[in-house]
Amino acid sequence: MADEKASLVALMTDFGYDDPWVASMKAVLFSINPAIKTVDITHSVPPHDIFSGALTLYRSYRDFPTGTVFLCVVDPGVGSGRLPLIVSTDNYYFVGPDNGIFSFIYAYEEHKVTAVDADYYFRKPVSETFHGRDVFAPVAAWLTRKVDVFRFGPTLNNYIKKEVPVDEVAEGSISGGEVCSVDRFGNLITNVRLTTMKKLALASGRKSFQIDVAGKKIPLLSGGYKQDAPLFALINSSGLLEITSFRKSAAELLGVSEAGTKVGVSVV
Amino acid sequence: MADEKASLVALMTDFGYDDPWVASMKAVLFSINPAIKTVDITHSVPPHDIFSGALTLYRSYRDFPTGTVFLCVVDPGVGSGRLPLIVSTDNYYFVGPDNGIFSFIYAYEEHKVTAVDADYYFRKPVSETFHGRDVFAPVAAWLTRKVDVFRFGPTLNNYIKKEVPVDEVAEGSISGGEVCSVDRFGNLITNVRLTTMKKLALASGRKSFQIDVAGKKIPLLSGGYKQDAPLFALINSSGLLEITSFRKSAAELLGVSEAGTKVGVSVV
Amino acid sequence: MADEKASLVALMTDFGYDDPWVASMKAVLFSINPAIKTVDITHSVPPHDIFSGALTLYRSYRDFPTGTVFLCVVDPGVGSGRLPLIVSTDNYYFVGPDNGIFSFIYAYEEHKVTAVDADYYFRKPVSETFHGRDVFAPVAAWLTRKVDVFRFGPTLNNYIKKEVPVDEVAEGSISGGEVCSVDRFGNLITNVRLTTMKKLALASGRKSFQIDVAGKKIPLLSGGYKQDAPLFALINSSGLLEITSFRKSAAELLGVSEAGTKVGVSVV
Repeated sequence: MADEKASLVALMTDFGYDDPWVASMKAVLFSINPAIKTVDITHSVPPHDIFSGALTLYRSYRDFPTGTVFLCVVDPGVGSGRLPLIVSTDNYYFVGPDNGIFSFIYAYEEHKVTAVDADYYFRKPVSETFHGRDVFAPVAAWLTRKVDVFRFGPTLNNYIKKEVPVDEVAEGSISGGEVCSVDRFGNLITNVRLTTMKKLALASGRKSFQIDVAGKKIPLLSGGYKQDAPLFALINSSGLLEITSFRKSAAELLGVSEAGTKVGVSVV
Repeated sequence: MADEKASLVALMTDFGYDDPWVASMKAVLFSINPAIKTVDITHSVPPHDIFSGALTLYRSYRDFPTGTVFLCVVDPGVGSGRLPLIVSTDNYYFVGPDNGIFSFIYAYEEHKVTAVDADYYFRKPVSETFHGRDVFAPVAAWLTRKVDVFRFGPTLNNYIKKEVPVDEVAEGSISGGEVCSVDRFGNLITNVRLTTMKKLALASGRKSFQIDVAGKKIPLLSGGYKQDAPLFALINSSGLLEITSFRKSAAELLGVSEAGTKVGVSVV
Repeated sequence: MADEKASLVALMTDFGYDDPWVASMKAVLFSINPAIKTVDITHSVPPHDIFSGALTLYRSYRDFPTGTVFLCVVDPGVGSGRLPLIVSTDNYYFVGPDNGIFSFIYAYEEHKVTAVDADYYFRKPVSETFHGRDVFAPVAAWLTRKVDVFRFGPTLNNYIKKEVPVDEVAEGSISGGEVCSVDRFGNLITNVRLTTMKKLALASGRKSFQIDVAGKKIPLLSGGYKQDAPLFALINSSGLLEITSFRKSAAELLGVSEAGTKVGVSVV
C-alpha cells in the first residue's frame, strides 16, 4: 500500500450538508497531508443511525482502490469513553468510533481491530464533542502518510458489533432475509446475497427463485430495469437481491417503506 | 488536449446525495487514474428527468477548461439495449447514455458521436443496473488517460435527440421562447439567447425589447439584480434571457412554477 | 505562504446543490490553476442571509491550514456597485463581496482589506449576475498563484460590517450573549466564548457557571454529549458555549428555534 492511491480518503458522516463540520475534517486532513484526495460517500446518514451508516459503507467500500482509508463518523457517543478504532483488512483501513459502525465489515471481511490511544497523533486540544476533526481525521491522515498501524495503539479483541441480518441457506429456502433500505427511487434493497442464492440453487438442484415480500410473490428476472413487469426482483450492483419496478416505486406498490420487513427466498 | 487539465472530470447524475452511488463512480475513476480531479455539477437532477439534466449541463459546460470529460448519468434505460456514448466536440468529451441527455450539445455544438462497444474498458462484471460505475466511469477515466476515441467503438449517426426548444427570429419577434427552469430564488430561466436577440435587433433596426410571460409585459433591464423594479428581464450569466425580481421570487409574482411556459420576445 | 498548502480554496455560498453555479466557479478555479484543491464549507447558507454565512465561516475557518483562500459568495447585491474584497489576515485570504460576510473576521482578527478593481484578473465578459464565477473565483485562483495582494487594488478603510453580538465581561456575568444558530441535532450555538468565561471566572474568583436561556437555568457540564442530563451547556468544538441535550433536541426542549434569543451567563 505504498503507491499513490493510498492517499485516498473516503468520508461518511451524519453531519449533513448545512454545517461546516465535514469541511473542518477535510481541513485537518489537508493540514497533515496536502496530497490527500477525498471522496464523499455521503454525509446524510440519518443522525445517530449507526446501522444505516454501516449498511451504506457496506454497499460501497469494495468499489474503492486498494489502500483507501475510510473515515466514518456516526458517533452519538462522542465525549464518552468509547474507543476510537482502526479496522484493517487486506485492502483497506477504516477509522471511526467503536459503536458498531463497521459491523458489516466485521461480518464479511478478515479484519484486525486497533484501539487508538496514541494521542500524539490527535489534534490538540481534543474537543469533547468533535472527535471527527480532532481524533478520527488526524488518524486517517497519518495512515495515508504510512504510519504503521501498531503505532496508534494495541490490538482490540472485544469491540462492539451491531446485529447484522445474515442470509443463510435453510431447507429449500434462505433464512434471515430482510429489507435493509429503501432508496430514493423506491427500490427495496435486501441483505440476500447472490452468493447465498447460488448455494441454495446448488444444494437443491433447482434454479427458479420465488421471492416473498409483504404477502406478495415476486419473480426474479434478469435484464435490469428494462423489464415491463410491474414488480420484480433482480441482483443489484452490490451483488444483493433488490425488489424493483419498471419506472414505478416498488416501495409504494408493496406498501413497504422501512427496513426490517422480512424477505423470503425459495427455489421452486 | 494533452495537458494536465485534461484529467478534469465533471459529474452530473440524478443519484442524489444520500446513496453511495456517486462515490462508487469516483472510486472507479481514481482506481483507473489517480491523477483525476472531479467537479460535481449536481447530483440532484430530478430522477429520470433527461430534459432537466440536459439543460443543467448546457448551462454550465462552457465554463470548464478545454479537455474536461463530462460524465453524465441520468439513465432510466440502464440494463436495456441503449448504447453508451462518447460525444466529442472541439473542446470537450461527454460520456453517458444514448437517451437525449446531450440534446443541447447536439443543438449548439459541432460534434461527433461514438457508440461505445469496446467492453475491454469496462469494469467487470458489468452490473445490469449500474452502468454509471461499470461502463461510463471507466470510459471517462480512460479518456483522461488519452485513449483515442476511435478505440472505444464506431461512429454513430443515429442517436436519440430530445426536442430542444429553439429560439429563432420571426417577423419582429422571436419564436420558440420558453421557460426552461425555475431556480431556487424563483428566477425563470428561458432558452432565449442574447445572440438571437441581437439578430432580431439587427434585422428590425429597433433596440427596445418587450417580454411577454403569463399575460404580463416585462421590461428588459441591464444592471443585474440591483434594480428596484418588481419584475424585470435580464441576460443571465449563461447568455440567456431570465425573468427576475429584486429580492422577490419572479415565479411567485407571475404564478409560474414550471418549465414550458411560453415566453414572447418582440422589439418595439 | 509559498508552500503547496497555499493552493487550497475553501468555498462557501448560498447557491445550493441543485444548480450548476458552484461547478462553474470551480471550473474557473481549475482553468486558472489546475493544482488547486477545493473544500466545500457549505453551499446551503440560507439565500441572501449574510449573517448566517458570516457565522458559518467563523465557526470553521481556523481549522484550515495556513495559506487557505476562502471564496465566499453570499451576494444579494451582485450587479450593483458593491465592491469585491480581499481580506488578508496573518494566515488566510478571504475573497467575497463588501456586504458584511466577513464581519466575524473583522471582529476577531487583525486584518487588511483590499478593494479589488484590477479587472485584468477577471473572467471576461463579466456577467452582471454571477460575480462568483467572473470576479471572485478568478481572484481566488490568482491568489493561489502568488499574485501579490496589492496588485488587485487599493487598501480600503471603509467597508461594511454587520453588527456581531459580542460577549463581554460585566459585573459577575457576561453581557451580549445570544443564540447564534440551531444545528440539525437541535443544539443551540451561542456567541459566548470560553475565553470570555475564563476572564469572568478570573475576575470574580468563582468557577461555577449558571446559564439562563428562555427562562430556564441550565448547568454547565464537561464531558461532552455523554451526559444523562436532559439539558445542559458545554464548550463546543469552536470554543463557544452550546446548549445541548443527551440524544434529544435542546431546541425543542426549550422552545427556541431561532437565532437572537438572549443567553445569560453568570458565576455563582
